[in-house]
Amino acid sequence: MRAVDIIMAKREGRELSREELAFLINGFVAGTIPDYQVSAWAMAVFFRGMSPAETAILTEQMLNSGGRMDLSGIPGPLVDKHSTGGVGDKTSLILAPLAASLGLRDPMMSGRALGHTGGTLDKLESIPGYRTSLSPAEFREILARDGFAMTGQTKDTVPADRLLYALRDLSATVESIPLITASILSKKKAEGAEALVLDVKYGSGAFMRDPAEAERLARSLVDTGAALGLRIIALLTNMDQPLGRMVGNFLEVEECYACLDPALYDAVVPGKTPGPALAADLMELTLELGARMLMLGGKAESPEEGRRLCLGALAGGKPRELFLRNIESQGGDREQFLTMLGTYRSPHRAEILSKEDGYIARIDARKLGQAGIGLGVGRDRIEDPVSPRAGLQLHKKAGAPVQRGEPLMTAWGRNRESLDAAIPLLEGAAEYAAAPPPPEKLVMKEIRHG
Amino acid sequence: MRAVDIIMAKREGRELSREELAFLINGFVAGTIPDYQVSAWAMAVFFRGMSPAETAILTEQMLNSGGRMDLSGIPGPLVDKHSTGGVGDKTSLILAPLAASLGLRDPMMSGRALGHTGGTLDKLESIPGYRTSLSPAEFREILARDGFAMTGQTKDTVPADRLLYALRDLSATVESIPLITASILSKKKAEGAEALVLDVKYGSGAFMRDPAEAERLARSLVDTGAALGLRIIALLTNMDQPLGRMVGNFLEVEECYACLDPALYDAVVPGKTPGPALAADLMELTLELGARMLMLGGKAESPEEGRRLCLGALAGGKPRELFLRNIESQGGDREQFLTMLGTYRSPHRAEILSKEDGYIARIDARKLGQAGIGLGVGRDRIEDPVSPRAGLQLHKKAGAPVQRGEPLMTAWGRNRESLDAAIPLLEGAAEYAAAPPPPEKLVMKEIRHG
Repeated sequence: MRAVDIIMAKREGRELSREELAFLINGFVAGTIPDYQVSAWAMAVFFRGMSPAETAILTEQMLNSGGRMDLSGIPGPLVDKHSTGGVGDKTSLILAPLAASLGLRDPMMSGRALGHTGGTLDKLESIPGYRTSLSPAEFREILARDGFAMTGQTKDTVPADRLLYALRDLSATVESIPLITASILSKKKAEGAEALVLDVKYGSGAFMRDPAEAERLARSLVDTGAALGLRIIALLTNMDQPLGRMVGNFLEVEECYACLDPALYDAVVPGKTPGPALAADLMELTLELGARMLMLGGKAESPEEGRRLCLGALAGGKPRELFLRNIESQGGDREQFLTMLGTYRSPHRAEILSKEDGYIARIDARKLGQAGIGLGVGRDRIEDPVSPRAGLQLHKKAGAPVQRGEPLMTAWGRNRESLDAAIPLLEGAAEYAAAPPPPEKLVMKEIRHG
Repeated sequence: MRAVDIIMAKREGRELSREELAFLINGFVAGTIPDYQVSAWAMAVFFRGMSPAETAILTEQMLNSGGRMDLSGIPGPLVDKHSTGGVGDKTSLILAPLAASLGLRDPMMSGRALGHTGGTLDKLESIPGYRTSLSPAEFREILARDGFAMTGQTKDTVPADRLLYALRDLSATVESIPLITASILSKKKAEGAEALVLDVKYGSGAFMRDPAEAERLARSLVDTGAALGLRIIALLTNMDQPLGRMVGNFLEVEECYACLDPALYDAVVPGKTPGPALAADLMELTLELGARMLMLGGKAESPEEGRRLCLGALAGGKPRELFLRNIESQGGDREQFLTMLGTYRSPHRAEILSKEDGYIARIDARKLGQAGIGLGVGRDRIEDPVSPRAGLQLHKKAGAPVQRGEPLMTAWGRNRESLDAAIPLLEGAAEYAAAPPPPEKLVMKEIRHG
């Protein structure tokens, strides 16, 4: 078997066999198939695609390149959530303790911020002492005891994906649906999930702007996941403006904690989703995702029942307690964390004011995410550091009436220069209208297998 | 500028600018842009193509990576011919002295056998002492004196093409029309040609089997060549069966010499193309190509006039004399060469006999070419040696009546084992019919710019 023939077969649109994909992935990881053949193959996959069966085989071959968490004997259904990433997207930190409080077990293996989208690990590491590199034994132990555990990938987690992603990033082959599918699902299988709820985002702040393209990805993930034996549901959700009111590392942790603690809700409108002011979209999405996690875990029959269970759990305070317990379990200081709420901010601060009278048409998520890279929220290259204290707080979101000179957002920068550079970008992210814009639907569609 | 953005732009179908192509090619040659980015770009080019203007820019950038022959002051129009390769395709060795005898100057820089197609350098090196690695000064001197010179590429000849071709070969990106175009034309520009006749072949023994695909290549070559300031014509020609009656290294040199020496014609049918028996197709194609070389060199007004001039020159014997003079000029032994004619054959010989009564429908050129690799005519990998004395002589070609047991061809192998292995392949190359097949048109089309 020769790699060049495998590339040629894909180039000509042929479905690759298990033997061919095993040869390619094993050879790539072993270093016997050079990068330049794998990048050419990835570009051929970009153009030709892969069948669902082929994508499932690729995922398995990638999974076989490393170890898998042994979660046997852990009581309770192992249900995780994965998001394709967005700006201010922090549902994981609310969902994990919420799901755990309702009897699910969430083995959450997360990634880091890259480009305009944030990363769960960077957010968690803004809590002093918090360790995101758990040994398999620690991961298992914390998961069994607290109902969820949060860790990063190790050298042994799907090495084929780590190598392939780095190559795709440099060869303009990231945006391939089967390659994205295999990357996501191989890691979710490796972490030990049995069921998976996917939050596939579209819009300005998402990886895919186009809803139709995001739907194709969701469909590929659901079908491939099912072929790999996962119970799986995807929600197709809007990411045109940031989720919630905070964008940052500690700022987002803080917002999640506030969502779990009714004492911190600064606005509870009867009949509306509870939560901090301007976090209604965040809570709404959390409830929709949480309800599906409960359904896949056999704890709810319908989304409505799932939502009711989530609301009840949040009101009871157990998710909040599990959140704090997890901080302790993973090496953080619970008391110190609580003193940091509302105060842990960079001293380099600026207010962004409205330039117009009228209504906010949109706060462009991608522009905010890109400004956030400079502030220290995210990074352009995976080796760059982030700042725990940098970020943004939104005071207005789409639909809000606004007067010229009123604060739109507060920004904190890693240093003065970064803040000064971000201000025009942040000002440019606000779009105005004379009348309130029509409300955007947050969850566009639910996608299941078959 | 970043290579990944250039790959992405091409992936999305955008035309690349001169700056982008210069950055990519210069970086590739300098080693600052890694192979895995260039192979991914090449695959994107395979799928997206390039505009004629873009292909011309790529060719120029590749050309700029090395030196160019300085042929200034050489009297006479510098006209070359290039073939996309075939089995038994040996017109170069007849055309160069023929063109020179009529006042053209042919600066011929050739390649080696690869896969099922032969290479001019390997053929010439079957002449004892013949040197195909001329210094630029020798090349210039021999060209000026004899009217043509035959050399191979040096390290300095379009290094970008050498590196890129090696990468394309391993990344399944050889079959890209703009990349083929840039590869061919950058080398032809480097050798110093001012005008170029292209023999673009289609059919079983050609690089491209499909006439429509070959025509697209011819069109790309002609349009790009014109954009680069070359006077250029392409002929689209059939390569379903080997050209002439010999396939091999010395065997083909011998056949070419026989085409130049009426004393060696073993059949001259009044009113038919002169030449050795079964070489009518070879002579026909040579005359068609030669006529176009004369037109581009300003020596003939029409193909008919060009043919008449070629026939007259052949009858006069000057091309034959120039052929022998070139052997001496390039280090070969003219007298020894003449004693080798008809005798310089491997001792490992076999006769391939007809399996049927009827007519030869076809001798499949690709099958013969592939059998030839084993015999020692060609090679699978460019570092493998070839044998000067191996090859095939055809006794029947398409349309000939045949009886079971009659000799179809004689094969000479580099050793006994290679011969034994080739026999079933050679037997399988013959296709029979109950009635004579309709004659194939040798030259399907002439393609000019505009």
